[in-house]
Parts: sequence; C-alpha cells; structure tokens
Amino acid sequence: MNRLRAFVRERDWEQFHTPKNLAMALAAEAGELLEVFQWLTEAEAAAVMESGQKAAAVREEVADVFLYLLRLADVLGVDLAEAASAKLERNAVKYPVALSKGSARKYTELGAPGQVEARD
Amino acid sequence: MNRLRAFVRERDWEQFHTPKNLAMALAAEAGELLEVFQWLTEAEAAAVMESGQKAAAVREEVADVFLYLLRLADVLGVDLAEAASAKLERNAVKYPVALSKGSARKYTELGAPGQVEARD
Amino acid sequence: MNRLRAFVRERDWEQFHTPKNLAMALAAEAGELLEVFQWLTEAEAAAVMESGQKAAAVREEVADVFLYLLRLADVLGVDLAEAASAKLERNAVKYPVALSKGSARKYTELGAPGQVEARD
Amino acid sequence: MNRLRAFVRERDWEQFHTPKNLAMALAAEAGELLEVFQWLTEAEAAAVMESGQKAAAVREEVADVFLYLLRLADVLGVDLAEAASAKLERNAVKYPVALSKGSARKYTELGAPGQVEARD
Repeated sequence: MNRLRAFVRERDWEQFHTPKNLAMALAAEAGELLEVFQWLTEAEAAAVMESGQKAAAVREEVADVFLYLLRLADVLGVDLAEAASAKLERNAVKYPVALSKGSARKYTELGAPGQVEARD
Repeated sequence: MNRLRAFVRERDWEQFHTPKNLAMALAAEAGELLEVFQWLTEAEAAAVMESGQKAAAVREEVADVFLYLLRLADVLGVDLAEAASAKLERNAVKYPVALSKGSARKYTELGAPGQVEARD
Repeated sequence: MNRLRAFVRERDWEQFHTPKNLAMALAAEAGELLEVFQWLTEAEAAAVMESGQKAAAVREEVADVFLYLLRLADVLGVDLAEAASAKLERNAVKYPVALSKGSARKYTELGAPGQVEARD
Repeated sequence: MNRLRAFVRERDWEQFHTPKNLAMALAAEAGELLEVFQWLTEAEAAAVMESGQKAAAVREEVADVFLYLLRLADVLGVDLAEAASAKLERNAVKYPVALSKGSARKYTELGAPGQVEARD
C-alpha cells in the first residue's frame, strides 16, 4: 500500500482517486476479469492457468482489481483485513454449517424448501 | 485466506467456487459497491465514512470484494501480493512520471495532444 | 434482434451464448462503459459527446451493452419492452411522487429522516 | 423512453441522472443480473425461466439494465438502435464468417493458432 501510495503521489493522481472514481475503476477491472472467463467452458476455466497467455491475463486483471481495492480502502480509511475478518464472522452466523452445507441458497432462503438460490 | 478456506470447506462450498463463478461473484460485489456511490455527489462520496449507515455498507461491500478476490486467487494459485507488485512495476514503465504527472490519459495516449483520456 | 440472431447463427456462436456467459459479457461491457467515464469530472462527463473520440467510444460501448442485452433476452425468452414497462409500473408504486420528489433515497428509506440514500 | 422520461421528470430526478451516475447504475444492475446466475450450473442456468421465482428475478434485473441503458442513451443523445446496427456492421467485418465460425477467439486472434480466446 505504501508503494502504491507513492506511485500515485509521484504522478499527482490523488486528484483522480476519489472514492466514486475508484469504485468505478474497481468495477471496470472486475469486468475485464469477467472478459477472460466469459466464453470458456467450466473445464477450460478450470485449466486457465495452464495456458501462458491466459494465465498472464488472469494475473494482470486480478492485480488490477487488488490495486484499486487497496487504493479505495486507503482513501476511505478502511482496514481491509479487519473488514474481511468481521464479514467472515457475520457470515458464519448467517450461514450455519448445519443448514448451509452443500447448498448455494442465500441466507434468506436457508431452511426453506426449494431450489438452489443465489447467495449474496 | 486460511480462515476463508476453512469456512468454505466446512460448508462444502468448494463445488460452487469455480474460477468462473468466483469471477462473477467478485464482479457482482463490485456492483454493490457502485450502488453505494452511484447517486452521491463527489462531496457526499468524500464524506461517506462519516455516516454510520453508509460507512457500514462501504465496509461490508469492500470486504465482500476482498473475500471473493482472495478465494479466486486461492483457487487459481495466484499470489496476490506478487501479482500486484509485478503490475505496479509494469505500470511504472507505462506511466513515466515526467509524462503522466497530473494527467489521467491512458498510456497509449501519453505524449499525444488532446483531452484527458481514460486510463486502464 | 433478427439481424443479431442471424449474425450469431452464421458464425455458429449459439454454443457460446448461454445465459450465464451472456450475463458475464453484458457485465463486462457495462464495465467498459464505466472505463470511459471513470476519470472524468462531472463537467467532462456531461460534455463527453462533444469529443469525437470519446463520443465514438461511448456509442461503441452503449451498443455492446444493448447487443448483449438483446441476445440475453432472446435466449431467455424475455420481452424487453414488456419487462421494462412492468418494472416502471412497480417503480411508480415504490416511489410515489409525493415522497420521492427530489430525493435519491432508496424506497426502503422513503419517509425516513436522514441522508440521501442509494436507490436500487 | 417517453414514459421513462416522464417518470424521472415527475420525481425531479434529472439532477441525479448524470452520464457518470447512470453508467454506474447500469453496471450495478448488470452486477445484480450476475448474482442471479453466479452459483448456477450451466444446466440450472439454462432452465432459469422455468422457476417462477428466478424467472421473476431475471425479468426484473433485465428490465433494470434496459431502463438505465435507455436513460443513459437519452441523456447522451445516443440512438440505441442506430448504434447497435452500426456496431453489428463493424463486427461483421471484424469477424468474417469463414474465420470465426464456431470459434470464440477475439478478432485480434483470428487466424492465429492456439486456444479459444475471449471475444470483446
């Protein structure tokens, strides 16, 4: 994060790095990551790191998402590790092992009969 | 990452965590982060952490993006810190301080006359 | 939609155009649209169609989003005009003019005191 | 588009509907569409319209994407049908039937040996 901050400061880019712009840049990079996977079958996607060219693209886009996430967290004063840890604890309550094992149902649907449901 | 891996394993969710699905979940969470900011003015966005409710929403969505990014990196065998560091070095070459200072032009436009341009 | 369908059929691309893949492609194109706007100030964004190069980029990305949306609707058998019309009617109920005038609060927050809130 | 424009005007929401904000809202809705599909297998995704609840969610999110796309096009003065038609013509040149038949390779890779590649 320090190196990234210096990189931005040297280029006088803080002016562009507003929370709103960084949230957009993060989502745009997440979109580029989608682009790598969008036409692959599940089997091709599972083997994506075995192709030199695609593996490089994946590493690049994953890095871009991470860099913008670090920037956004820095600008907003959010401690990423702490936020993730707190969320994982809340998720453990929302998704008890006994109810959610092997199910992709969203927590609002746990215990309900019926189909596999999207999880948030 | 270890705690996250255990969380997923206990719930038998590895079956859902294919690279393709995780890339989708990551992009969906980046979209929820956009939602927090989309109707805010730049001034409101800059003050977003001063509102308890919005600050909590930001922390939540930032955490969700981070958790899915960690999962994706884990499943693909990508070292996040190393990938980000390598990308930052490539960016330092693409965006020399002398040419890019104070400009949001994309590297393919650096040195070219004309308007501020989106950076990738 | 007919021309698009023919375009896809001629190239034998139906095999790639599953609902899941098309939803990914749509989101990836929405990300490219974000990229056009992400470093622009509100004033620059409002004048985006006055720059030949940026106007062309906007038209391109808007078209890409529309084409994938048409494809997805076609593959899923969703009538876009009807779905939009039905949603607009539901929104008219969720956002009564008297309560929502001039406010960006989400419908779940209407009537509540406090800050401007994201709308879904 | 006229009904949508009236809906927005009655609520005095033009102030929020800047190109930048609308591009964000569009991407956020594309993210909600991803969320419907992200944990589904290809088979489940193909059958998504047979489940009442999921079909309703799909129609809702597809409508949201369309409504924001219409708003953005309206605000920017882009003719959606014309932009899509022009793009389809450019794509027909970039992806000649003879070279692209049955292949998901991006146009920059057409003719090149090697793996199936993401298309933009």
